[in-house]
Amino acid sequence: MPSNLDWVQNLKPSGPQGSDLLQQERNQSNLDVDKLAEFLFTKECLDRQDKLLNILRAEKVFDKSQNYFNGRNERILDALSRAKRLRQLSVQHAWTQEEYQMANELISEPTPYGLHASMFLVTLRDQGTPEQHNLFLEKAQKYEYIGCYAQTELGHGSNVRGLETTATWNQEDRTFILHSPHLTASKWWIGSLGRTANYAVVMAQLKINSKSYGPHPFVVQIRDLKTHEPLENVHVGDIGPKFGYNTMDNGFLLLNRVKVPHVNMLARFSSVDPQTGKYLRPSSPSLVYGTLTYVRSTIVMQAGSVLARGVTIATRYCAVRRQFQDRDAEGSDTGEDQVLNYTMVQIRLLPLLAATFALHFTGKGMMVLYQENQKRMAGDAGKASDTDRGAGPEELHPGTDLLADLHATSCGLKALASTTAAEGLEVCRRACGGHGYSSFSGIGSWYADYLPTTTWEGDNYMLTQQVARYLLKSARSVLQGTAADNDTTRILHHFLARQDMGAAFDVLTSDTDLVAAFAWRTAFLTFEALKHRDDDKKSWNSLLVDFWRLSTAHSQYLVVKNFHAALDDPMTKSSLDPETLSLLHKLFRLHALHTLEREASEFFASAATTVRQIQLAHTKAVMKLLEEIRPHAVRLVDAWRFPDWQLDSSLGRYDGKVYEDMFYRASELNPLNQVTFDPYPDSGILVRKDERETSGQRVGRDSKL
Amino acid sequence: MPSNLDWVQNLKPSGPQGSDLLQQERNQSNLDVDKLAEFLFTKECLDRQDKLLNILRAEKVFDKSQNYFNGRNERILDALSRAKRLRQLSVQHAWTQEEYQMANELISEPTPYGLHASMFLVTLRDQGTPEQHNLFLEKAQKYEYIGCYAQTELGHGSNVRGLETTATWNQEDRTFILHSPHLTASKWWIGSLGRTANYAVVMAQLKINSKSYGPHPFVVQIRDLKTHEPLENVHVGDIGPKFGYNTMDNGFLLLNRVKVPHVNMLARFSSVDPQTGKYLRPSSPSLVYGTLTYVRSTIVMQAGSVLARGVTIATRYCAVRRQFQDRDAEGSDTGEDQVLNYTMVQIRLLPLLAATFALHFTGKGMMVLYQENQKRMAGDAGKASDTDRGAGPEELHPGTDLLADLHATSCGLKALASTTAAEGLEVCRRACGGHGYSSFSGIGSWYADYLPTTTWEGDNYMLTQQVARYLLKSARSVLQGTAADNDTTRILHHFLARQDMGAAFDVLTSDTDLVAAFAWRTAFLTFEALKHRDDDKKSWNSLLVDFWRLSTAHSQYLVVKNFHAALDDPMTKSSLDPETLSLLHKLFRLHALHTLEREASEFFASAATTVRQIQLAHTKAVMKLLEEIRPHAVRLVDAWRFPDWQLDSSLGRYDGKVYEDMFYRASELNPLNQVTFDPYPDSGILVRKDERETSGQRVGRDSKL
Repeated sequence: MPSNLDWVQNLKPSGPQGSDLLQQERNQSNLDVDKLAEFLFTKECLDRQDKLLNILRAEKVFDKSQNYFNGRNERILDALSRAKRLRQLSVQHAWTQEEYQMANELISEPTPYGLHASMFLVTLRDQGTPEQHNLFLEKAQKYEYIGCYAQTELGHGSNVRGLETTATWNQEDRTFILHSPHLTASKWWIGSLGRTANYAVVMAQLKINSKSYGPHPFVVQIRDLKTHEPLENVHVGDIGPKFGYNTMDNGFLLLNRVKVPHVNMLARFSSVDPQTGKYLRPSSPSLVYGTLTYVRSTIVMQAGSVLARGVTIATRYCAVRRQFQDRDAEGSDTGEDQVLNYTMVQIRLLPLLAATFALHFTGKGMMVLYQENQKRMAGDAGKASDTDRGAGPEELHPGTDLLADLHATSCGLKALASTTAAEGLEVCRRACGGHGYSSFSGIGSWYADYLPTTTWEGDNYMLTQQVARYLLKSARSVLQGTAADNDTTRILHHFLARQDMGAAFDVLTSDTDLVAAFAWRTAFLTFEALKHRDDDKKSWNSLLVDFWRLSTAHSQYLVVKNFHAALDDPMTKSSLDPETLSLLHKLFRLHALHTLEREASEFFASAATTVRQIQLAHTKAVMKLLEEIRPHAVRLVDAWRFPDWQLDSSLGRYDGKVYEDMFYRASELNPLNQVTFDPYPDSGILVRKDERETSGQRVGRDSKL
Repeated sequence: MPSNLDWVQNLKPSGPQGSDLLQQERNQSNLDVDKLAEFLFTKECLDRQDKLLNILRAEKVFDKSQNYFNGRNERILDALSRAKRLRQLSVQHAWTQEEYQMANELISEPTPYGLHASMFLVTLRDQGTPEQHNLFLEKAQKYEYIGCYAQTELGHGSNVRGLETTATWNQEDRTFILHSPHLTASKWWIGSLGRTANYAVVMAQLKINSKSYGPHPFVVQIRDLKTHEPLENVHVGDIGPKFGYNTMDNGFLLLNRVKVPHVNMLARFSSVDPQTGKYLRPSSPSLVYGTLTYVRSTIVMQAGSVLARGVTIATRYCAVRRQFQDRDAEGSDTGEDQVLNYTMVQIRLLPLLAATFALHFTGKGMMVLYQENQKRMAGDAGKASDTDRGAGPEELHPGTDLLADLHATSCGLKALASTTAAEGLEVCRRACGGHGYSSFSGIGSWYADYLPTTTWEGDNYMLTQQVARYLLKSARSVLQGTAADNDTTRILHHFLARQDMGAAFDVLTSDTDLVAAFAWRTAFLTFEALKHRDDDKKSWNSLLVDFWRLSTAHSQYLVVKNFHAALDDPMTKSSLDPETLSLLHKLFRLHALHTLEREASEFFASAATTVRQIQLAHTKAVMKLLEEIRPHAVRLVDAWRFPDWQLDSSLGRYDGKVYEDMFYRASELNPLNQVTFDPYPDSGILVRKDERETSGQRVGRDSKL
């Protein structure tokens, strides 16, 4: 800062200081933060985070201080530099997959290598034959081939069967001809494709002698390995800027009768006999839904953590920010009140804090279920290896009820978890008032980057249909007495068994009754939907909204059930002290009862509770729980252990120096402040300073007038 | 496009074409779009829009084609160029205030001149004496002084009484000393200040002989009029990037004992006697709330239009986008279904379409009320002139019930309208599925720029307290028999009068009963809140959530009432044909009944309706209304008359050429596609092309490795 501004250096925020306020917050609670953090994540994982953080912070390439100021072109080039350096580091330090993934999470932005590691390598590995592993996977693992997974098209996303790109078998020269017959066949949204990848796994409609066999995967070279120019008959590029996710080069791809040899069709499961041109499918079916289910489980697991970032920032800030005196104290000498003391702020933030734990435990529960299934299937099929991290795509074995149960579960929970996290982040941002709108809050960009999760891997509204379909099927089988035994059929049976008695759930005193009320509501909505569909013969389309409500209810039940089960688990009880358990229990009740009051009309309509119970849930339970949890809020978010470096947030700093940090970024880091505007209507836009050093910033342009 | 890509030029989307689909949509409805548009906006206004559009489209400076691609620095410099050109044009064409404002709306981005025109000029005019008009306003109107309104600080937004900047009277030299005593006193968020303004009206705590008189306005020069450098003892700059609104230079301002002469304190209402140092306040009180009320009325009016942009885009796109066949038609030869046919899409979009009209009519209603009040006050006070566009700040005359009623109304409606518009825009964006996430959808950036409206001019949650306070006061006066007669007291009286009989609203057959049910619910919640506060003596803080619910209920009632009244108005009935009226009536019912079903638990709890009525509202009314309105959806959004140039959206083009437009922008306009990445981990990030022309794009950087 120039010397004539020395007086600025001496300025401090008016007291009490943010750092003192956060200290007070931490002093007023006994919560054992370290113990809770270790229970949530394991000590090994936390130590890994510290180790990786030290490595990343030491390197200039990962420095975040200009992130918020740069435009897309700079951001994406920085992201590419970081992606390369992460790859180099992972080779140098022999990082495991978890370490590599965690390093990326600390960087906190998608990079142009993103889909190479996640989708390209995984698909080659899981859908390729040993021969294809030699041809493609090896080089891809060494980053000699950089690839992507090209499925979605301009005209087709959710309806994969409608893909327009074709792969036509040519018996004469034993090739496939990949072709984009229409503009809408253009691959679109393909991560890592836009500028980076030289290879792609292209999903295309397999055609043999004019007959179509559905979408299959083909390895296609996209760019020259030396010049990196697109190959002939390939038109590829970046699809343009997005609401967020701009550090990724999502790309488009058009193919004009590009030939690939027979061996390029990934053939572990389906293949074309090169001699006869006959379509072959192996006899032991495998699960195609496996990958989807796995990815959806990971989305649920991450949702808690994604939301927790926003909750951490908002909670700390709302403990620092003071505004107005409480109306009943007006005129007294006490200063302004911390906004976290206002119940209107608590009702928005603390249920979200509870949701982070609910989602965390639910995601863990799903993962356990998924891995158990993988083991069982490996036993059954003798095919999928246990060392697989469970990412293999496997076909759904008709009649495998547990898999069907898990698949439906994962659809509904993916939808609920990602919606909860995305919408929760915006609530957090808005709870930060005016300053929440600044990029320095760190919430806006995080939210914008997370938002596509509500659309990809199955549009959330679309997915709810699948859940409804499954629940209707289960209900039919229950009514017919042919149902398998699983959680879903159990709750349906229970509902039917009490048809003539109704429900009497003591939701405000009994946790098991509280969970059971959620189950009851789900069962009620299921049988209502079944009546509309099977008895009233309503069209599927006319019931979509009911199906969405039903799926949401079912998923909310699963979350409440999983949270409750996690707290009841002996492992949990032995790992945590009674105070922590008690606090988690309050969070469980807050989550369940606040959900109940928000969904009150369905709890009435299903007669799961009375009107009075809902009123009391609000006034006597939820409002009281807010009061009880609030003193521990700062320690609870501390337990999520987000390093300041990861959050990159003025409002969410561990030390509470909100205002100092905002001022520093605005006054010292902001390149726009090196640019002097000429404000008058009839002159140019900039005041020219020939002798002024522009510090390498992009400044100055001729006036457009 | 290079010639080896000629094959790309020949590609078209697969049929049916978007343009044909939109044509079919327009063919299947008889709605007279022009007549409705003229009714909503007046022919004069629509003609004005056409005229201005032609002027703007002809000038290169207003070209939008690179908007989405540019980083903040380029965007804001472009915006400054545009602001200057708009000023020149407004002088050249002698534009009225409406024309200037409309031209800005067509540009659709805030510019660095924004707060000069809206707040600086208005404040000088309304709070300045004739002498001050000569000294400051004249030059400001000629854009020799470019100014802003510096009220909000780093530490204080909503609580204006807590501002920390001081203005201390110095009797010796008849000056005020403006000073920022703490870092948190720094002005923050001040539009047009960051790089542009050379003057500011600074709100500072007036201090005379150690006594504080509250915040008052002071004219302060910030920058040198020639060099445009900050003056001595002034630290000013841009506060950095934001979630949106990045074409505005919101600024910070710190003052180190800056002296201004006595005449710089705007003195129309309050002043300091320069001889004695005595604080003077004129005898006829004036309304300080006037400006706030006016601004909030404009926010309500605009909210409908803001939301309608998103609804226009999403409706047209959902009529073009096809995905899956309706499940009941699967296997038939009909192609994939337009997503607008899915009830799950209709339930999200069509109530928002209804809301655009509800908000439009409500905003109009508020404006009428405001202007009537202005006339009445001009009569009373003899002070405020009728030619004022009602923007004068005037003190609230104690006991002026109509003003109090309007003030409370404007608070609650500002909160509801801005929340409805902001959240509705995100629903629209998400309804566009994957492509909704592209900047080319035009919704994301529009939403991001609109979002602060939920926080500024009164944080929405804060404002609901003021509404609740007013409703409680009204309820007390009703119970005591001392109430004035206005709409609020009438609905409270009616509720009390039927205490012993309860309600019997035939909401599904009678519009007046439907409106009355909303009124009943409000009255019920008011008396409940009053009981908690006055009888149970609950703390204000513990009732904040109830107050928020109460304020929301009251505002929802007002919107439904206003919408109903607008349709009942003879003016409306004479301007529109019966078919259009019938359709608007369906939109009214959809708006009211969908709100009712979303707020079901309060309608139960207040016994305004039965559980059964709510169920039927959904299954028999809302779902049926969706079906009836859907065929007219495209024509209805056409009536909002947003030119394609204004929307700048691939998805929302009038002609439905969605895919062609997206592809063109990605393939032809995207500067990132001129940059060739080197993808390998161990090399640099760019492939250097010495002979390649970079077309003036910012390309190339040395590798950071």
